[in-house]
Amino acid sequence: MIPTKGYAAHDANLPLSPFEFERKPVGDNDILIAILFCGVCHTDIHVARNEWGNAVYPLVPGHEIIGRVIAVGKNVRKFKPDDIAGAGYLYDSCKSCDSCTSAEEQYCTKGITAIMGDVERDNSAPTYGGYSSHLVISEDYAVKVPEALPLAAAAPLLCAGITTYSPLKFVKAGPGHKIGVAGLGGLGHMAVKIGKALGAEITVLSTSPGKREDALQLGAHDFRLISSKEEIKSLQGYFHFIVDTIAADHDYNRYLHMLKKDGALLLVALPEAPVKFTAGAAIFQRRSIIGSLIGSIRETQEMMDFCAAHQIVADVEVIPISQINEAFERIIKGDVHYRFVIDMSTL
Amino acid sequence: MIPTKGYAAHDANLPLSPFEFERKPVGDNDILIAILFCGVCHTDIHVARNEWGNAVYPLVPGHEIIGRVIAVGKNVRKFKPDDIAGAGYLYDSCKSCDSCTSAEEQYCTKGITAIMGDVERDNSAPTYGGYSSHLVISEDYAVKVPEALPLAAAAPLLCAGITTYSPLKFVKAGPGHKIGVAGLGGLGHMAVKIGKALGAEITVLSTSPGKREDALQLGAHDFRLISSKEEIKSLQGYFHFIVDTIAADHDYNRYLHMLKKDGALLLVALPEAPVKFTAGAAIFQRRSIIGSLIGSIRETQEMMDFCAAHQIVADVEVIPISQINEAFERIIKGDVHYRFVIDMSTL
Repeated sequence: MIPTKGYAAHDANLPLSPFEFERKPVGDNDILIAILFCGVCHTDIHVARNEWGNAVYPLVPGHEIIGRVIAVGKNVRKFKPDDIAGAGYLYDSCKSCDSCTSAEEQYCTKGITAIMGDVERDNSAPTYGGYSSHLVISEDYAVKVPEALPLAAAAPLLCAGITTYSPLKFVKAGPGHKIGVAGLGGLGHMAVKIGKALGAEITVLSTSPGKREDALQLGAHDFRLISSKEEIKSLQGYFHFIVDTIAADHDYNRYLHMLKKDGALLLVALPEAPVKFTAGAAIFQRRSIIGSLIGSIRETQEMMDFCAAHQIVADVEVIPISQINEAFERIIKGDVHYRFVIDMSTL
Repeated sequence: MIPTKGYAAHDANLPLSPFEFERKPVGDNDILIAILFCGVCHTDIHVARNEWGNAVYPLVPGHEIIGRVIAVGKNVRKFKPDDIAGAGYLYDSCKSCDSCTSAEEQYCTKGITAIMGDVERDNSAPTYGGYSSHLVISEDYAVKVPEALPLAAAAPLLCAGITTYSPLKFVKAGPGHKIGVAGLGGLGHMAVKIGKALGAEITVLSTSPGKREDALQLGAHDFRLISSKEEIKSLQGYFHFIVDTIAADHDYNRYLHMLKKDGALLLVALPEAPVKFTAGAAIFQRRSIIGSLIGSIRETQEMMDFCAAHQIVADVEVIPISQINEAFERIIKGDVHYRFVIDMSTL
């Protein structure tokens, strides 16, 4: 067993606090990672606070993990000690369903195993996330992180990056496309960078005038304040795609009407409130709404290499783990540009 | 001017009654059709009763029109006198937008002109629908009806037929696909026949046990009573596509969960209530919801020829026009298998 330090939620209402536990031994197909950085995603808060109702405590959050490989099982081919490896939300899957056998394990029809707040497929142990010193994971569910990337800022690529990259690739976004990015948070700011690198024209759609400067600095070609009726009207039928990263309830008709014929609204966030729109908003211009969940491991590797080639990383604020509870509060207030990343050497 | 007889609504609360009016003269690109049959679609009721709030009276409904060409303008190439022609909801469009110039006029970005309850693009006159003796229409917005088809039963192809054919072709439905048809009315029964002729496996999804026999007789491979929880559960992740023809409010999550990864819910009806679903129902298997509106004229012609080749027509009850008000009431009660068609010789 691998003695491991971390921070855990011990109850929905308690702040995270230090927690010591053991990782499983390194199996033949596993790698042992000494975690260097872990991004802080809003999902970590939902799960730690049992907002999705299925938390089991103690719960170690964290699913944007980058670290150094310090041991490998005897069958491991992809990694060797000293490599930099990354792991995201997807920790394991059935390996036998159509999705798994066609390299789209994130859609495993038997259900994926999450890297945090879940249990191993053999029920042997809970899964503990990346707010911790070490991780043992099958090489099949880890990706190689190009050393050219600044590692702290690369950590959020493992969730925010792949979650926006995957749907953009699915719809073959590229040069000539006009793409709207609804919401400029952790996901939104990655959608701007990745969409731009794919060659598309990017417009940030926001209700916060204060985000204009940031949006343009991140590389967006335009920023539109869609609390203004004139702006909304001027964007009717404008976009090929809109990446909808808004995790709160919002007006879906507004965004649907901004799409061209055959345009698609790409849903990547999980608001509690239902998605709600008038059938005609889709029907009258054959628009579609497409859901998309993170990305496969193969695609995550492709995204990592793409980001290295285009020097894309997240905009991050690196924090010591002692500030994690304050970071949670700041995320809830929207006070982060655009991702906290924990420096795990502070454990 | 062409003296024309018809039946019109004169107010939202009055029954339809005889109405005499004049059609515009036959222009150089127009054809004059002596109407033989006109299907009765629920949309006719919505419009006649001003349920969409934009009715102008007198209003002549009818948009599933088949008749004999009795005169053609000098530039007309597609038709000659004595041909059988069909016309649907799409009466005119701008002819210059991207949709119009790429043969998808039904998505005209300047808005289509409907064959009933609308006004000519030059504002010269209202458009009067097919519950009438004659129609003048540009040859560009009419289709040739193969004489091999029984004409009364072919009339509903002009709306119910093309509305289900178009989205099925859009998603390239064919052999190997499992298709659910939600709702077995005018649209649904055409979706069964067309989907089957395209080579797919068709399952009718209904809450009415009484529709089982009909569904199988129409050619469906299976019928599932989805008021049963067991049935719903057994269909999780089963379909590639579901054609959603239900015009009343319903549970969209139920249908989304019946779709495979990358499956699509094809919306063709316009319920008053918003479409409402949990984001996760789309996200967790990358499902999509796609709206679709009738079809282009080119596609309507293709559908007509396809239906002739496969001997597909609607199941109809032919009525004299004097029974139109009773037919409206029976449609509202769902008491029709599956389309009323008016024999216009009874005018």
